[in-house]
Amino acid sequence: MSYVVYGMASSGNCHKVKMTLENLRLPYQWREIDTLKGETRTPSFLAMNSNGKVPVLAIDQTQYLPESNAILWFLAEGTPLVPADKLDRARVLQWMFFEQYSHETAIAVARYIRAFLNQHDDSRLPELQKRGYAALGVMDRHLEARDYFVGSALSIADLALFAYTHKADEGGFDVAPYKSVVAWLDRVTSAPGVSVMPSP
Amino acid sequence: MSYVVYGMASSGNCHKVKMTLENLRLPYQWREIDTLKGETRTPSFLAMNSNGKVPVLAIDQTQYLPESNAILWFLAEGTPLVPADKLDRARVLQWMFFEQYSHETAIAVARYIRAFLNQHDDSRLPELQKRGYAALGVMDRHLEARDYFVGSALSIADLALFAYTHKADEGGFDVAPYKSVVAWLDRVTSAPGVSVMPSP
Repeated sequence: MSYVVYGMASSGNCHKVKMTLENLRLPYQWREIDTLKGETRTPSFLAMNSNGKVPVLAIDQTQYLPESNAILWFLAEGTPLVPADKLDRARVLQWMFFEQYSHETAIAVARYIRAFLNQHDDSRLPELQKRGYAALGVMDRHLEARDYFVGSALSIADLALFAYTHKADEGGFDVAPYKSVVAWLDRVTSAPGVSVMPSP
Repeated sequence: MSYVVYGMASSGNCHKVKMTLENLRLPYQWREIDTLKGETRTPSFLAMNSNGKVPVLAIDQTQYLPESNAILWFLAEGTPLVPADKLDRARVLQWMFFEQYSHETAIAVARYIRAFLNQHDDSRLPELQKRGYAALGVMDRHLEARDYFVGSALSIADLALFAYTHKADEGGFDVAPYKSVVAWLDRVTSAPGVSVMPSP
């Protein structure tokens, strides 16, 4: 199978796809898409993903799969990055849905407003800060007695949550008080294929 | 296995769990939780889900699984509600992540503001309307040549998206112009286990 990723290097949702491909040593091509220049709203992009968002994984240039965490599942199912146990598999999805609903919508959006749009006085930021710190608290309590989010090994749940958490400072978040999150970030940083996401 | 659902009957995220259990004819108990009375913020609830949200699936009263779409996957993996083909499985997740990120956050939130809080002049509603209609448009285009979201049979992607779509009117949305969505709603309504969600 050949893979092409349509993504933006400074987007966490895209960076998690890159890290998964690198961890699994799967060959791929990267096509850089600038969402701020409207490149996800062109007819050719919308033909790949009518929802107009990166990343999109092109499979053999015939099938197009959007939604970052669905791409991670597609690439990693059957590898050590997705556990074999049925409940553990559901727990991987639990944390990936948490990431998209409770984490990304606060921490990534705050980063977008501050680091991409340079709007440090945006009226949405206080509420996003509150929700982002709540998400970091949930992660910290879960990681108190655990090395990884599910089971005892790295999974795509860790890669999904690592993407925006390791750059939360760019959204105005101080992660230092969340000591179990900090220790987990260090642990994931040293895993194969994991890399620091470029700043905007 | 014994299942207990901690959920609120008028919540789409909870109703999708109920429909999946009913479709699969799995026995379960339902414990009604009133989120507006703070019942998801008690110590005993937070011990089940530190993120403080319904639904939670209790498995044999020893394991607690939050996140509606992770619960659907857990219950349905290995049944006809989750396809066997690898790419089709990822597509089910694609649409469930779309549901949580692009659909629920607009259509369910607008319904919450209007039907639960009775705030029909809330300043967030215009933006939520715009995003909700965009999500309905994405669904409508996808369903133009399809009976179900993935493959040719009902899956948990349909049940997940049905939950808030069939009550979108309570969020102030007129679904009638989205003719493929309307036909799909009729189709899903007649499937085993599918039921109309109670209004608040």
